[in-house]
Amino acid sequence: VPDAIRGSIGRRLRAAVIGGGGDAQIAATHRLAMRFDDAFDIVAGVVSSDPKRAVAEGDALNIARPYPDLATMFAAEARREDRPDLVAIMTPNHAHAAGCLASLDAGYHVICDKPLANSVAEATEIVARAKSRGLLLCVTHNYSGYPMVRQMRKMVLNGAVGPVHLVQVRYAQGNLGTPVMDGAARVAALRWRLDPAMGGRSNLLLDVGTHAHQLLDFVVGSDFETLAADLGPSLPGRTFDDTVMVFGQLENGARASLTATKAATGAPQILDIEVYGDKGGLIWRQQDAQSLTHCRPGAADSRLHRGMEKLAPEVLASMRNPRPHPEGFREAFANIYSAFGASVSARLAGRPDDTAPLLWPGPDYALRSLEFVEACMKSSDTRSWVRLREFGNGG
Amino acid sequence: VPDAIRGSIGRRLRAAVIGGGGDAQIAATHRLAMRFDDAFDIVAGVVSSDPKRAVAEGDALNIARPYPDLATMFAAEARREDRPDLVAIMTPNHAHAAGCLASLDAGYHVICDKPLANSVAEATEIVARAKSRGLLLCVTHNYSGYPMVRQMRKMVLNGAVGPVHLVQVRYAQGNLGTPVMDGAARVAALRWRLDPAMGGRSNLLLDVGTHAHQLLDFVVGSDFETLAADLGPSLPGRTFDDTVMVFGQLENGARASLTATKAATGAPQILDIEVYGDKGGLIWRQQDAQSLTHCRPGAADSRLHRGMEKLAPEVLASMRNPRPHPEGFREAFANIYSAFGASVSARLAGRPDDTAPLLWPGPDYALRSLEFVEACMKSSDTRSWVRLREFGNGG
Amino acid sequence: VPDAIRGSIGRRLRAAVIGGGGDAQIAATHRLAMRFDDAFDIVAGVVSSDPKRAVAEGDALNIARPYPDLATMFAAEARREDRPDLVAIMTPNHAHAAGCLASLDAGYHVICDKPLANSVAEATEIVARAKSRGLLLCVTHNYSGYPMVRQMRKMVLNGAVGPVHLVQVRYAQGNLGTPVMDGAARVAALRWRLDPAMGGRSNLLLDVGTHAHQLLDFVVGSDFETLAADLGPSLPGRTFDDTVMVFGQLENGARASLTATKAATGAPQILDIEVYGDKGGLIWRQQDAQSLTHCRPGAADSRLHRGMEKLAPEVLASMRNPRPHPEGFREAFANIYSAFGASVSARLAGRPDDTAPLLWPGPDYALRSLEFVEACMKSSDTRSWVRLREFGNGG
Amino acid sequence: VPDAIRGSIGRRLRAAVIGGGGDAQIAATHRLAMRFDDAFDIVAGVVSSDPKRAVAEGDALNIARPYPDLATMFAAEARREDRPDLVAIMTPNHAHAAGCLASLDAGYHVICDKPLANSVAEATEIVARAKSRGLLLCVTHNYSGYPMVRQMRKMVLNGAVGPVHLVQVRYAQGNLGTPVMDGAARVAALRWRLDPAMGGRSNLLLDVGTHAHQLLDFVVGSDFETLAADLGPSLPGRTFDDTVMVFGQLENGARASLTATKAATGAPQILDIEVYGDKGGLIWRQQDAQSLTHCRPGAADSRLHRGMEKLAPEVLASMRNPRPHPEGFREAFANIYSAFGASVSARLAGRPDDTAPLLWPGPDYALRSLEFVEACMKSSDTRSWVRLREFGNGG
Repeated sequence: VPDAIRGSIGRRLRAAVIGGGGDAQIAATHRLAMRFDDAFDIVAGVVSSDPKRAVAEGDALNIARPYPDLATMFAAEARREDRPDLVAIMTPNHAHAAGCLASLDAGYHVICDKPLANSVAEATEIVARAKSRGLLLCVTHNYSGYPMVRQMRKMVLNGAVGPVHLVQVRYAQGNLGTPVMDGAARVAALRWRLDPAMGGRSNLLLDVGTHAHQLLDFVVGSDFETLAADLGPSLPGRTFDDTVMVFGQLENGARASLTATKAATGAPQILDIEVYGDKGGLIWRQQDAQSLTHCRPGAADSRLHRGMEKLAPEVLASMRNPRPHPEGFREAFANIYSAFGASVSARLAGRPDDTAPLLWPGPDYALRSLEFVEACMKSSDTRSWVRLREFGNGG
Repeated sequence: VPDAIRGSIGRRLRAAVIGGGGDAQIAATHRLAMRFDDAFDIVAGVVSSDPKRAVAEGDALNIARPYPDLATMFAAEARREDRPDLVAIMTPNHAHAAGCLASLDAGYHVICDKPLANSVAEATEIVARAKSRGLLLCVTHNYSGYPMVRQMRKMVLNGAVGPVHLVQVRYAQGNLGTPVMDGAARVAALRWRLDPAMGGRSNLLLDVGTHAHQLLDFVVGSDFETLAADLGPSLPGRTFDDTVMVFGQLENGARASLTATKAATGAPQILDIEVYGDKGGLIWRQQDAQSLTHCRPGAADSRLHRGMEKLAPEVLASMRNPRPHPEGFREAFANIYSAFGASVSARLAGRPDDTAPLLWPGPDYALRSLEFVEACMKSSDTRSWVRLREFGNGG
Repeated sequence: VPDAIRGSIGRRLRAAVIGGGGDAQIAATHRLAMRFDDAFDIVAGVVSSDPKRAVAEGDALNIARPYPDLATMFAAEARREDRPDLVAIMTPNHAHAAGCLASLDAGYHVICDKPLANSVAEATEIVARAKSRGLLLCVTHNYSGYPMVRQMRKMVLNGAVGPVHLVQVRYAQGNLGTPVMDGAARVAALRWRLDPAMGGRSNLLLDVGTHAHQLLDFVVGSDFETLAADLGPSLPGRTFDDTVMVFGQLENGARASLTATKAATGAPQILDIEVYGDKGGLIWRQQDAQSLTHCRPGAADSRLHRGMEKLAPEVLASMRNPRPHPEGFREAFANIYSAFGASVSARLAGRPDDTAPLLWPGPDYALRSLEFVEACMKSSDTRSWVRLREFGNGG
Repeated sequence: VPDAIRGSIGRRLRAAVIGGGGDAQIAATHRLAMRFDDAFDIVAGVVSSDPKRAVAEGDALNIARPYPDLATMFAAEARREDRPDLVAIMTPNHAHAAGCLASLDAGYHVICDKPLANSVAEATEIVARAKSRGLLLCVTHNYSGYPMVRQMRKMVLNGAVGPVHLVQVRYAQGNLGTPVMDGAARVAALRWRLDPAMGGRSNLLLDVGTHAHQLLDFVVGSDFETLAADLGPSLPGRTFDDTVMVFGQLENGARASLTATKAATGAPQILDIEVYGDKGGLIWRQQDAQSLTHCRPGAADSRLHRGMEKLAPEVLASMRNPRPHPEGFREAFANIYSAFGASVSARLAGRPDDTAPLLWPGPDYALRSLEFVEACMKSSDTRSWVRLREFGNGG
């Protein structure tokens, strides 16, 4: 983590979690985010709404103090010196509000998955509660965490494109491009989302519409003042929304369009934002998340990237590796470590371990690389072809 | 982490580290890789070759048992029941060999940054020692940790392109594109690398040449049999290598070219591998690391991506998120968490906290998103333009 | 030109042109299109609405029989055996209707720049006239001439993506991103467009909106049944449209969004169309015009390209070079020829010619290339480094 | 064509051609290049080495004065006032030398396909002959005709990257990636190339190696001084070259690598050049031919494109359309014209014409577009949803 933030955190914060048991995908991302900069310890949690599963699954997640329900957790932790510094909420949407209110009432700062709630009324209540108690409340609109999105906001607010007159945002996924409810296989992951009681009246809007909207709101620093929208299912016979198409005017006077869909069958994740003013434009696409294009009439496009020295301080502070290495580099590195860890564990337990040769590079690779190094030196020194000594090709 | 690996690890492994104090960049990546899947705890370490700094800097890294030197650590840990399961080495290159040998002699499995050593002789000794003691030895050639690189290897070995006849690998960075030794500012990070006593006779080859070579070796499953190379500085007056250009023949008979340079001034990190056989080709570029192109004569290119269902099992097992979300997503998520953590820490300590509005989304965003959601619903329901209620644009 | 079409044309067709004098940009493209496949001769024309300029500028364009006005041209050509086979119209928009009607009344097939007219009423009259006289009428909606757009239409109609449920089209340019009417320099090119009497009430819609619409109509084979649109200027104080944002439902039931703007300041030409059905999606972007992406849930993306053997016959018939060479190749080739032609002309006229060394490769390049060839052979034969003989570096 | 060149040509030049009968692909590109800017008329030619075919195929190509052989052509044309201004040669390689020498001896300027000859000796003779007769000689190394390649050269020579220290060039095609000589189907197009008597000892080097080399030579303004190369077949059992890999030192002291292959099975055409100096780098890739990337340490990449106002004059003079429209636009435009031409020809000849609805946009598209235009206006004016009037979906 950037030194500025890392330094300002100091000791690891103690976190309690609500939700995230079983195989909830986004909860795993929340927990990884907490580990990423070595800034949080998850010390307690209620990871399921089912009290029995909550304790067992909390154990399985290596949580020191798993609890069966919120009341028990808040009561027990209140008595400890090392009680949590904050609560992180990663339940399905419909449980966000109750979790937030209970956590705030127990005196904890809160970081909650988005949307904060399934309605403005609930959200307003939560916000008021945090304010009245003087507690911090963060919602993980994670796209505003991309360094180049932060750079884009900074540049827009600094006037790099002049007064903004046009904004276009687009979010597309293919999850609902096929008649998903017919097949049993994929239903499980979608069940709560497509149940209005849990996923909200329009899960399409709550789940991805809010991402697209917050991205616009964050980058432009201006919200819609008026809009027209077309919302609904695009597949025949479907009863839940899969697509929204919006246009309107922002408070700053700019025209804006925003589309969000889960019916882009087979498409990659597409999330693009373009902002134009009378001096130029800024374009960010999540598929090329590590760069930002600044275009100006009659001039070369300027392609900002992570290797630049003149990024805004808060952008540099958001990049863990401003050198050439792209993000994703860490995931690859972790793959090596975790696979090696699996082999070490297998060895410790006396279990067989067949996958090692593929999943982590053994010393043969290191030896062959060094032979290559010395062969290159020899060839170059002698300006001749050289023959490498024989060496098994184990991998 | 993929369930298969996660499941096979079970309890967190206890790791001791050698190296990584101060601001060593790659060491931070090693430690993050250990946290990534919640699979390792760093319980002990010697993080500097300077005994005094070793303990202080180990403390600063939240390492439970920091030691001043290897002998002390190995002696002390030997007496513990909860002694480490393995040692992770992340020192400058010249210290790898001593660290490996000492760790192996102390009976630990080892995972070591690449290159394993600065010479074949040292590496051979280390490999023999691990073998004779029956210990695991992993070298973090991290490019083989990319899911699509693993998919590429799998496909090459399965004959997807037929017998391989041509391989081209290219690695380019710009770190040494300017006369770096003249300016004081950038020298620090490069000092040990450019000192042959520490960085090796050809740090260019040891530092990035080995990456390019191992990528070829891993993907193709065949090493160079003969080669010719041109190695040296490209900038006038420079005495250390910045570029190597190699061609030759692999053991499987294929022709191959490999270039690696740090003199590609201003260039992004470029790491490409292309493998061609008589049925087709496979192309992977690190700049688009999450896809793999399979081309065949007269046919559409097939672009494999993380959303596919038919990737090799070990590839799926390497992806933490096979859904649409790209890698880098986690870093953005972590930015939100860490910034929020900084604010919580500031609040706990009574410190002011000015950066919050930019660095983590407060509840205003959540409220505005929900207003947007309800405005879209209303507009769509009424097929009319709607006006959002006024709301402050705080951020 | 594809053999099928070329063969079916036989002798060059004789064309008369209306419009295109001076430096009208799109008219130069019309004329080049006529020369491209050696299929047309421009034998007559009225290239300006000003009778005096019409004859002089027609001469300058190497048109054999330039005329001062339409009446004169049609009367004179009616008496010739080698009268034109067709009329090509490339005037500003407001003159399309009169040109079409006069040409049809004179018995000519017509190919006309888009839009066919500035109103539905005029267009309906023209269409009826062509039909009643049994004459062919083509409108140069040129995006449907891209091979991969044709392939996309073919695949959509053949069910490659299943029944279409979602379509998104986007057109963006930056021409009107700045306050253009304030500066004198750029006004000239825009004058007729921004004068409602000539460019139509909404030149934005007529000029680029129709391109976006026809692309959707052509590819999907279905038009809007209902829609909502937001049309107007995005720059403050501007009185003419620069942006339209549309959503609605197509006749086939699909949801669709379409945006077209000239206010994307500094942006490249962006023209994208995406079509999704319940089996998959097809994506075409003009910036990568020579490929077409077919995506399907859970499968690798298929990237169709010009080197494929299984493209639809009418697509292959649209590509002049189905081999690896990309389009644009021809423009580069023509640059060499035309620059050499300029030098030949200069030599013939005894004029000096300074630009040659840059603009066309002289024989020194050929000599050096051949020396390179022989040096490579020698090096490879001898597996040794070789030294090229000294040769001047003239260029 | 750029005004400067177009203006300097004046009347169309009269050209005689040698070669290009039948279905020779590159000859069609030569002829199109001559028509592109309306700068040449092909008035005479010997299009085949077979006298009988030469006249018939010349007729089929609409060449006014086709001849059976060179002697006859040069003798006959010598007697005409309107004799050619130049000769354009587009035969297989082995006939270049004889064609050039005969044309020069007959007093003509010459533009010849590359390589100028199959050996340095022949090429030297041709160059000397041109020089001694004071005639112009151009070789169509067409990659130097790309505007951005010209811009790159200009910038390199102007010091944009500082003194050049590293150059990397790569050319890859897949034509010879499969055992082509086994199948009869593809042999025809390759026969002369793979016959050393016609294609040269190493057609790989002569055909594409020279392209890669000239691109380097042109852009850098410096040739190899020393080099090492590996040349040969990559497919087992093959006797002709398909791959060359070269590294060496340029006259200016820079290190350089160059690879050229036709064994990149299934690959797209890849032609890349990268040039690095101590101030930065320039990167051009043919697959994105219309842009040029300028990278500098610590700064945003600058992406030069055709819409810029500050390109070098000779670059602007090489672009027929400096506005947003990309190259390839013209080919699409020509597709519309030629297909319409085919329909007009069919109508004139009373032939049926089934392909029209796909290949050229009929007036229905124009009508529907205008209806769309008016519907958008109405919707926007009324801020309401509108319904388009019913209209047949003919296409």
